[in-house]
Amino acid sequence: MNALLLHIQKFVSLISEEEQIVLSYFETEKFKKKEVLLREGQICDKQYFIINGCIRFYINNAKGVEQTMQFGIENWWITDYLSFQYQTPTRFNIQAIENIEVLSIDRKSFDELLERVPKLEKYFRLVIQKSFGASQVRIAYLFTMSAEERFNHMNNMFPEFIQRVPQYMVASYLDFSPEFMSKIRAGKI
Amino acid sequence: MNALLLHIQKFVSLISEEEQIVLSYFETEKFKKKEVLLREGQICDKQYFIINGCIRFYINNAKGVEQTMQFGIENWWITDYLSFQYQTPTRFNIQAIENIEVLSIDRKSFDELLERVPKLEKYFRLVIQKSFGASQVRIAYLFTMSAEERFNHMNNMFPEFIQRVPQYMVASYLDFSPEFMSKIRAGKI
Repeated sequence: MNALLLHIQKFVSLISEEEQIVLSYFETEKFKKKEVLLREGQICDKQYFIINGCIRFYINNAKGVEQTMQFGIENWWITDYLSFQYQTPTRFNIQAIENIEVLSIDRKSFDELLERVPKLEKYFRLVIQKSFGASQVRIAYLFTMSAEERFNHMNNMFPEFIQRVPQYMVASYLDFSPEFMSKIRAGKI
Repeated sequence: MNALLLHIQKFVSLISEEEQIVLSYFETEKFKKKEVLLREGQICDKQYFIINGCIRFYINNAKGVEQTMQFGIENWWITDYLSFQYQTPTRFNIQAIENIEVLSIDRKSFDELLERVPKLEKYFRLVIQKSFGASQVRIAYLFTMSAEERFNHMNNMFPEFIQRVPQYMVASYLDFSPEFMSKIRAGKI
């Protein structure tokens, strides 16, 4: 549980009593590699904080191909914010791509927790702001960098990550063409 | 100024003293159609709340073409959250596409305002959550709907908007091909 408290402390200071309240609201869940945490059409009633492992957020595109939009690793939050907020069916899927351990909180508990520990409003504002900013930058990269630049950039920023995640998911996330993937496989990049 | 207070009241209740503090932190700014509020390479030191008019958030893509990523109209907030938060140069541009009136707040004042009126943490968390969710859904549409479906969907949801914004910006936002644009212009859609 400490990973979450450590992460919160990077943004806001909690007193010991508040820490105990926070811990009481979360449930530890484990999922095996390939298990689905959220499926298109369901209500996304949970937010997940990743303790261990890697998760992806994807959509089934018009051709039925899975398009990865976001990855989450240790210390990241993941959810469909619109579905969570408005309790409407999600268009997205969340899947474990390794055996994972997460802390989860449902919508009702989340609202109650924020009532009881209002300092967390700031924490979640900053977390969402960062996620939103990162998603804008990802789109910026898609529009402004060549496939090779995107690959090299990700490899420089997150070298371990490229090893960790199946190649076809990285390719989908970085919007690589099959031609570019063949070059990588052939060691030409 | 009332538009902002009315918008805040949809999410959190302020007492009259807090309302006065909020108002004291914002500056009214006017920009003419086509004026640029933020240019690629600058630090995005402001958040804007739109009182009147329409704004777009765009990027110059690898071919030097302007790619519209987001529109903002009355009662929307617009900023580059990463640049604002970390005071790093932005990759984006913000431009008035009508004569506009906005309320602006810089980073230092924003932090100070949230210290003085902590209730606003919740307001901004919910606003950002909604913007992030909307941006995820826009990407979902790009992957799952045909150009015609995207056009019809936007036309149904925001009929006035399609009239208001130059067609080439809508085309860029909805990622239309030149062929599809010709069909629209010829009245075939």
